[in-house]
This record gives sequence, C-alpha cells and structure tokens, in this order.
Amino acid sequence: MVHHQFAALGDPTRLAIVEQLARGPAPAGDLATPARMSLPAVLKHVRVLEDAGLVTSVKRGRVRECRLSDDALVAVAAWTAHQQALWSTRLDALGTLLEDA
Amino acid sequence: MVHHQFAALGDPTRLAIVEQLARGPAPAGDLATPARMSLPAVLKHVRVLEDAGLVTSVKRGRVRECRLSDDALVAVAAWTAHQQALWSTRLDALGTLLEDA
Repeated sequence: MVHHQFAALGDPTRLAIVEQLARGPAPAGDLATPARMSLPAVLKHVRVLEDAGLVTSVKRGRVRECRLSDDALVAVAAWTAHQQALWSTRLDALGTLLEDA
Repeated sequence: MVHHQFAALGDPTRLAIVEQLARGPAPAGDLATPARMSLPAVLKHVRVLEDAGLVTSVKRGRVRECRLSDDALVAVAAWTAHQQALWSTRLDALGTLLEDA
C-alpha cells in the first residue's frame, strides 16, 4: 500500500536516508543522520524503510550495507502521476466549460 | 518541506481524500471516509492536508467546500523524479563499470 511508503517518507531522518541512498549504497553507520543519533536509532529508521519496500540491507560481518530497492519510489511516482492526471483532466474540463459559457 | 506532505499522505483516510479530490472538489461532508467517522474527525484530516499545502477549503454557509491545491503533489512529484534520476544514473554507471571489467 502506497500510504505505508508515504508514512515512511514522512520523517525528515528517513527522507534524508533515501536521498543519500539514491546517490549510492552505504553502510548504516555512514548514513547522514542528525548528530548524536545512535546506531540502533538509525537502524530502526532503516527497518521502517525496509518494511515499506524502499530500502534493502544486507549484513556483512559487523556492517549493515544499505541500498535503495530497485523499485523504490515506483509506486509513489505512479500514484502521484495518476492523481495529477485526474486533476488536470478535471481542470481542462472546467476550462472548456467556462469557455463555452 | 516535502516530508510534511509525505506525512500527510501517510494515512489511508487522508490518501483517500486526496484521491477523491483529484476527481473534483467536494463538501467535507461528502468525503469518502471510513464508516462512522464523525465530521469533526474528517475536518481534522482536512486540516492536516491543508497545513501540508495539499488541499484548500472554503466555508460557504454551513458547508466546507474542499478542493485539491493547484500545486498539490508538484513537490512530491519533483522530489520523487529527482531521486529516481539520481538512482538510475548510479545504476547506469555501475552497469558501465561492470561491462568494462
């Protein structure tokens, strides 16, 4: 469900993590998070992003390597484009109506 | 900030309201919300969407008329497209690297 993805992105720390991972994979310890945020707190945010299907992570030794899911943001982009298309169709129809009036 | 918009859309009731309003304006009382949700509860969700800049509403007599903001979802669409572009550039660069190896 796309609202889970929106909820996951509705937090500034998680949004920043996604922005960083869009530039390339990174170990959880290297994620740019607010100063003084503990690694367990960071990993909790990573878990929320994983649950929403936006991020995948693999543990290699003591490091958890994080990357964007291959289809991350596809559902968000599709939902957004669909609503915008509906809305502009509606605005166009309204425009035609006003021209004809 | 786009994370406020994501947070506003991260709730199934509010997502459904946006989907309905993309098809055209509606009075708050006609918004398709879960059965038994009170009008004050609906108006609270509308307020969250207004605070995020996604919806505007005008009170006409006893009815609060709601509509999608003209630039609703523009920031969401732009953010999403930007991250996807960064990510596919990264994947392309990785592909070239692997081909050259």
